[in-house]
Amino acid sequence: MVVPSPTLHRAVVEHMVRQAVYQRLGKPMPAMARSPNPLVVNVSARHCHLTPEAVEALFGKGHQLTVHKWLYQEGQFAAKETLTLIGPRSRVISNLRILGPCRNLNQVELSYTDGIALGFDLPLRISGDIKGTLGCMLMGPAGFFEMSEGVIRALRHVHMSPDDAKFYGVKGGDEMKLRVGGPCGVTLDHMLCRVDKSFKLEVHIDTDEGNACGLQASMPCELTK
Amino acid sequence: MVVPSPTLHRAVVEHMVRQAVYQRLGKPMPAMARSPNPLVVNVSARHCHLTPEAVEALFGKGHQLTVHKWLYQEGQFAAKETLTLIGPRSRVISNLRILGPCRNLNQVELSYTDGIALGFDLPLRISGDIKGTLGCMLMGPAGFFEMSEGVIRALRHVHMSPDDAKFYGVKGGDEMKLRVGGPCGVTLDHMLCRVDKSFKLEVHIDTDEGNACGLQASMPCELTK
Repeated sequence: MVVPSPTLHRAVVEHMVRQAVYQRLGKPMPAMARSPNPLVVNVSARHCHLTPEAVEALFGKGHQLTVHKWLYQEGQFAAKETLTLIGPRSRVISNLRILGPCRNLNQVELSYTDGIALGFDLPLRISGDIKGTLGCMLMGPAGFFEMSEGVIRALRHVHMSPDDAKFYGVKGGDEMKLRVGGPCGVTLDHMLCRVDKSFKLEVHIDTDEGNACGLQASMPCELTK
Repeated sequence: MVVPSPTLHRAVVEHMVRQAVYQRLGKPMPAMARSPNPLVVNVSARHCHLTPEAVEALFGKGHQLTVHKWLYQEGQFAAKETLTLIGPRSRVISNLRILGPCRNLNQVELSYTDGIALGFDLPLRISGDIKGTLGCMLMGPAGFFEMSEGVIRALRHVHMSPDDAKFYGVKGGDEMKLRVGGPCGVTLDHMLCRVDKSFKLEVHIDTDEGNACGLQASMPCELTK
């Protein structure tokens, strides 16, 4: 089956139009239009990353994740496969989405709202930094897989290329702020910068943060130091 | 049964200590210590307000709400009684807390996360302004009660006395900002001021907002224009 390439994100189209309009009018571009890339803000719903071994334990020998939907970052996708998570107090989250491709660690990213539903305090961690965190049991159609650690709330972060980092005057590991407009607007502090030449400019916030401000694609968003 | 009066909120104790320390040291007080009242920030979990008629329909003729826990605002309480809410798409929220005393309208306040779970878009409204909003069915031990309207996400707001309003230089209906510190700090815009001489200074945010910043009593909070 051929998976269609994703449609353009609204922020990408707006950025192209903004640049074209300023150019046509011959007016000096504001900072927002001068930025090398459009700012895309996406909400990461709860999900997990798995190793190939975990995928085999859960879905059967030789199983490979299949693409449900391509994500904004090149090569990343939401898989068709979902899981059941059994927390440390035997409470359950069903239909936990897996993101592909496989990684070299197993990690579950939940919101604090999910943590309360599961009945335990989630640690706030940079994605990948899971040492000493609580684990959980995962259940798939072919079996169980026990994670000894790796259940976290991921620190809000922004993916960017070195070009973007130069434009904003930041480097990997720095923190920025994201201002979201609208009738229940917020400013999110401590937005961690993750810089890599493969990255497209994209902020990842979780569902608590997205719902706090009722994030919609039409809302003005601004990234500042 | 005698319901004990609530213990002092951490913010109240801190404010008293802060004022005493500055006075003892004979140093000029910073704005935070000069404020007439401590700033208390509380998360309102999902809840509803009911008329006496709705309480009777749900809990039986002549039933009166009983106090589970006194709230920070004088005379307000979380009732022992809870309800089941059946949404417009037949999805259910159990154990919905009722806040007392009874009011002259029926209103359910949910988070956007709850709205997504129920499968519909909640309108963002000032508490009390429910005209034209969606309704729901409520189920109690003695019967059902149909609300034709009144299911909302309540706009974040701050209760204050005229003294507090004078100190902050605002009036009822104005908007302020609440800055919350900590490792996932946020600033919440559009914090509606509600001024009444019976009000104690208290910010009400919902669980999405509280979980976005992982609000804890130890976190520094600041209210600004």
